[in-house]
Amino acid sequence: MKALVYHGPGKIALEERPTPSIEKATDAVIRITKTTICGTDLHILKGDVPEVTEGRILGHEGVGVVVSTGSAVTNFKKGDHVIISCITSCGKCRYCKQGMYSHCTDGGWILGHVIDGTQAQYVRIPHADNSLYHIPEGLDEEALVLLSDILPTGFECGVLNGQVQPGEIVAIVGSGPIGLASLLTAQFYSPAKIIMIDIDANRLDVASKFGATDTINSSYENAVERVKELTEGFGANTVIEAVGVPQTFELCQFLVAPGGRIANIGVHGAKADLHLETLWAHNITITTRLVDTVTTPMLLKTIAAKKLKAEQLITHHFSLNNIPNAYNTFSKAAEQRALKVIITNDEKITHEVEHVNRKTSLVGVD
Amino acid sequence: MKALVYHGPGKIALEERPTPSIEKATDAVIRITKTTICGTDLHILKGDVPEVTEGRILGHEGVGVVVSTGSAVTNFKKGDHVIISCITSCGKCRYCKQGMYSHCTDGGWILGHVIDGTQAQYVRIPHADNSLYHIPEGLDEEALVLLSDILPTGFECGVLNGQVQPGEIVAIVGSGPIGLASLLTAQFYSPAKIIMIDIDANRLDVASKFGATDTINSSYENAVERVKELTEGFGANTVIEAVGVPQTFELCQFLVAPGGRIANIGVHGAKADLHLETLWAHNITITTRLVDTVTTPMLLKTIAAKKLKAEQLITHHFSLNNIPNAYNTFSKAAEQRALKVIITNDEKITHEVEHVNRKTSLVGVD
Amino acid sequence: MKALVYHGPGKIALEERPTPSIEKATDAVIRITKTTICGTDLHILKGDVPEVTEGRILGHEGVGVVVSTGSAVTNFKKGDHVIISCITSCGKCRYCKQGMYSHCTDGGWILGHVIDGTQAQYVRIPHADNSLYHIPEGLDEEALVLLSDILPTGFECGVLNGQVQPGEIVAIVGSGPIGLASLLTAQFYSPAKIIMIDIDANRLDVASKFGATDTINSSYENAVERVKELTEGFGANTVIEAVGVPQTFELCQFLVAPGGRIANIGVHGAKADLHLETLWAHNITITTRLVDTVTTPMLLKTIAAKKLKAEQLITHHFSLNNIPNAYNTFSKAAEQRALKVIITNDEKITHEVEHVNRKTSLVGVD
Amino acid sequence: MKALVYHGPGKIALEERPTPSIEKATDAVIRITKTTICGTDLHILKGDVPEVTEGRILGHEGVGVVVSTGSAVTNFKKGDHVIISCITSCGKCRYCKQGMYSHCTDGGWILGHVIDGTQAQYVRIPHADNSLYHIPEGLDEEALVLLSDILPTGFECGVLNGQVQPGEIVAIVGSGPIGLASLLTAQFYSPAKIIMIDIDANRLDVASKFGATDTINSSYENAVERVKELTEGFGANTVIEAVGVPQTFELCQFLVAPGGRIANIGVHGAKADLHLETLWAHNITITTRLVDTVTTPMLLKTIAAKKLKAEQLITHHFSLNNIPNAYNTFSKAAEQRALKVIITNDEKITHEVEHVNRKTSLVGVD
Repeated sequence: MKALVYHGPGKIALEERPTPSIEKATDAVIRITKTTICGTDLHILKGDVPEVTEGRILGHEGVGVVVSTGSAVTNFKKGDHVIISCITSCGKCRYCKQGMYSHCTDGGWILGHVIDGTQAQYVRIPHADNSLYHIPEGLDEEALVLLSDILPTGFECGVLNGQVQPGEIVAIVGSGPIGLASLLTAQFYSPAKIIMIDIDANRLDVASKFGATDTINSSYENAVERVKELTEGFGANTVIEAVGVPQTFELCQFLVAPGGRIANIGVHGAKADLHLETLWAHNITITTRLVDTVTTPMLLKTIAAKKLKAEQLITHHFSLNNIPNAYNTFSKAAEQRALKVIITNDEKITHEVEHVNRKTSLVGVD
Repeated sequence: MKALVYHGPGKIALEERPTPSIEKATDAVIRITKTTICGTDLHILKGDVPEVTEGRILGHEGVGVVVSTGSAVTNFKKGDHVIISCITSCGKCRYCKQGMYSHCTDGGWILGHVIDGTQAQYVRIPHADNSLYHIPEGLDEEALVLLSDILPTGFECGVLNGQVQPGEIVAIVGSGPIGLASLLTAQFYSPAKIIMIDIDANRLDVASKFGATDTINSSYENAVERVKELTEGFGANTVIEAVGVPQTFELCQFLVAPGGRIANIGVHGAKADLHLETLWAHNITITTRLVDTVTTPMLLKTIAAKKLKAEQLITHHFSLNNIPNAYNTFSKAAEQRALKVIITNDEKITHEVEHVNRKTSLVGVD
Repeated sequence: MKALVYHGPGKIALEERPTPSIEKATDAVIRITKTTICGTDLHILKGDVPEVTEGRILGHEGVGVVVSTGSAVTNFKKGDHVIISCITSCGKCRYCKQGMYSHCTDGGWILGHVIDGTQAQYVRIPHADNSLYHIPEGLDEEALVLLSDILPTGFECGVLNGQVQPGEIVAIVGSGPIGLASLLTAQFYSPAKIIMIDIDANRLDVASKFGATDTINSSYENAVERVKELTEGFGANTVIEAVGVPQTFELCQFLVAPGGRIANIGVHGAKADLHLETLWAHNITITTRLVDTVTTPMLLKTIAAKKLKAEQLITHHFSLNNIPNAYNTFSKAAEQRALKVIITNDEKITHEVEHVNRKTSLVGVD
Repeated sequence: MKALVYHGPGKIALEERPTPSIEKATDAVIRITKTTICGTDLHILKGDVPEVTEGRILGHEGVGVVVSTGSAVTNFKKGDHVIISCITSCGKCRYCKQGMYSHCTDGGWILGHVIDGTQAQYVRIPHADNSLYHIPEGLDEEALVLLSDILPTGFECGVLNGQVQPGEIVAIVGSGPIGLASLLTAQFYSPAKIIMIDIDANRLDVASKFGATDTINSSYENAVERVKELTEGFGANTVIEAVGVPQTFELCQFLVAPGGRIANIGVHGAKADLHLETLWAHNITITTRLVDTVTTPMLLKTIAAKKLKAEQLITHHFSLNNIPNAYNTFSKAAEQRALKVIITNDEKITHEVEHVNRKTSLVGVD
């Protein structure tokens, strides 16, 4: 089969690899129909995720069709249309029993990380019963690719942890795909205002279209002052960090109202300053979370009920054959006005080996 | 009346001052029977709390008897025995209606801060109906002084915010009075272990007597390793910061289990490092809180029901005449093995002016 | 002033009564601009509420302008535009401190019940600081009359107690004004389906316009079977009882899914059967609640943010002079297709005594 | 092997049966070391549980040693000491993922109900990974039999659902084993009072020894009046129904304070009256629950930490050979002063067929 393979920092290639097969009774093998690229994949490409070794097939998102199942799999059978969760859950460890699948002792984020992933024609999914979700008939599978990771991440880490409430005020720092996923799902709870903060004018325009009531371009506006103005001086009840650098996390601390919540989504590479000298008395709550994907069934229902228009996040389409270009586009997301790119496993792909010239498929990472 | 008056950094004196009287319809005047000294009073003495101006009567804790009430006071009448809350609550602002009395727009922490306090024979209490609590008959009023501040602080900021649960593991960093107040009230929820961490052997001994299951002297033990050992490698579910310096807050981050809570009680004077580079994926919650004293009625019931032996925290007694000595003792708390000192308003005190030589009453602050 | 006065079962009259004045320091007197009639007023008229004695001015809803305040009132001043809560809250009793204003020991539902109410040109509001809410500039005060009672009732007793969640299924039994108030506010939480059940085709049409995804006319449809069909056989996660008779409460028990909630809003006059022989093992929660109006500030924000279009509930307008007719219309609500009727205190009303012939103002109660 | 077999209403017999073996990859076979009899077993004997067919081995509680495991079992291996949960959980259905194991679509209460149970020398446990719990070394396994059912039932259905809080007042109606299990576990939360209500003087004496602060013998005392006296007229915050008949459920409604909770544990065979004509306005919550056993790990930790002395509930011991006598004793529990009886699988039992005379083993059920 064709697969997108990591060959060390800055190097990926579309290659022919053996089609995976069932290894354990709890496995399923899925024929990928659609996959996508995550910001985390770019981190891997930069060499920031040392657990990813050379030869690894990347990708932890996708939808597809079950082609085979292990003997212990009971929730799924050949031919079922499924969403693949970015988080593998065994359903029986200490953490899974608490709904903290991200820390599953035999799973968690392993796809495209420590086992082969979804940017391929086929993928093996361990603990299939707890790591796949049925696609209801009649739903557009393309939009459902976003249920693999970005929507539960924006919702669980940002909206749920941030305890968004009707009539309250939400500020989201970062209007990239993940911040926008929080923006979309925050609207489940009817906040009075959702203030979007970024330095990219286009992304703020998108945010306005997606339901932001106010936008702040912090490249030339004072975000702290603007948020004060928009909140009668109190600050925002929920502040969502969707960037992942010390400066934006620090900014959140100046935006939050007494009694408010800062919900971190950002993947941080460095420590940040915490201003306890003022915050100690402000009755605030700060949360961190690696997505657990416990809310995938709930989110699926909101999509089916048309309460969440996930497809809005999709800006570009590529065939799997063209995935190196997809990486190119996504790695220049702001410039390309890219949010999420959909990679389609084109059915005409033959099973011949198609060695891809690695040189031509090298992706320039910003 | 006699009162302990602040005269700038390092200077306090017991002086004669006019007895307070009702200023607003919602006021009550209380004859203090017992008061105490708080760590915050020592901060004031050091000059760390600039809002406290010269001439201010200190103190925000105490029990006493109502001597007069304003016309709008309905919950209390002359002769009632009462606990004075360190937090004044108007009961009708945005914050009070949410139970966040600490941020009351016409109250909060004002006693011995921006209005005269309780280290005196009499004190005027604004918004008396919402800021005083009846002492049930038959209860020892001395122990109830600890309901003014330290017990609700340890309970609300540490135990409630830290979500202590039956069978779980709690680590408390700091075994001073406030850490011990958390230790006592954490036991309401029957955690399996309460691990106390400090650098003072005596305070750790006290902690053991008060119910700590394990103690760690971090002056010579590696707290992180010891907590790992005591928790099968997982870390503590609840970590309570009861010191207030960057190092101890940082330590908490290495003690907390995935999915756990860090509840800050400490009054911090500087920012601290937050290790988001690891914590971003650990699903943790960090809380801060200035005590709201919303749980005072609940705590009073636990004392009445003998579920909380508050009196254990009392180590020293002084008469009000001798309050400068009490400050001396409390300011060398570790050396003096002092936890809470009780100051009694001795009834034989006459109403003559007794000018106190400020020089002799100066308190050395460590 | 003019006022609608109760004179025993079946008898009300618009009469001249003395304008109220401040009796306590915590009172305010409000000039009513708009008021309305509640289903409870009809119960009173039927003689079902014996605490309402002859001579009582009815009404517990309204908006208006502050004309005078007692000396202890600080949140409001003459000229302020205000919403009057149907629940009077002292802000300082055991219940008010828990947010359970409905059980306030010096308040609760007293307006138009045990003290004179709002169906008059003026009304005296005890504990004004905790029982009135400022109307923000620019908001249409007419719709805000619905914040006095019906919207917080539908929201608190039905939606909050019923724990409506994104993607879940809500069934509301009763599509009268209160059921519709639940329908409107349930949408704050983006449930996948809201199924409305009634026996009146018009009211179900209204429900569809207000956002119901499905309607069931139980006069000829089997509600239990239809709900099963609409929920893949599981039942509804939240079932809201908005009628108040044993049969509808019993119906709710057959509609609720395992793990679901039945939230009672209905004012019941008789006991109901509880089918514990099956429900004991269904892990359900049943709640009852007299509205506390703690969510009035939140609801006001949702109206200001246009997340809640309260005005949709208004179907009829009358002047205060014509209030007996308003009662006539509202008492035949289904027939008249009436939801909420707005009564305007017409400014041209003179202060002459206008004795109303009680006979002509008698209201026929269904 | 020996097993206690049901042969229709009123008839059980200890018989020789084939030793169970692994049927599915997720099964384990356990050699029972200790088991017990549940009130539910007596219901079965009376013929009240029609799903239990003739020939069924009874029992859903026990501890033992793993003798074999299916190929998909990873949490347990031969030789492990384990607690058997009365609830079988697949870990992967809609309900299990919500922690509502009681409604597991491939499990729930099946042991000794629709598949063979634990009152035998060996038992097959489906979904072993999610339905067994490791016994930590050093713990007395006898007391842990009570973790199979009665302790999680009293805790989850009574204490957790009843939201027992520090300083509050709990009333428990029924001082049998399950009420006592609630009494023991309610103490995790340090309520001020636990009032036990029963008609059996001995059981109330036991309750006092187990920590009840007050007891009411409702055979000659007026429980409603006594609870009023003990609660300053307010009623109990949490009322736990631990009997299962309409009269006791009705009593609970008169004991609960405004804002309080009624947590039903009782297995009801008939509907009960719900007094909505008064309760509609009392802001109460009523819950029902079939135990989910999600708290078994937590309870195990409280036992290991000596916060829960489970062994207090054990009053009688029998060998498996003598289990018909154990049924006799337990079926006359009040008279025999029996709480829980422990049945030991005596190792000397030979594998010869020992036909038990059914006549002699008939158990008289009260």
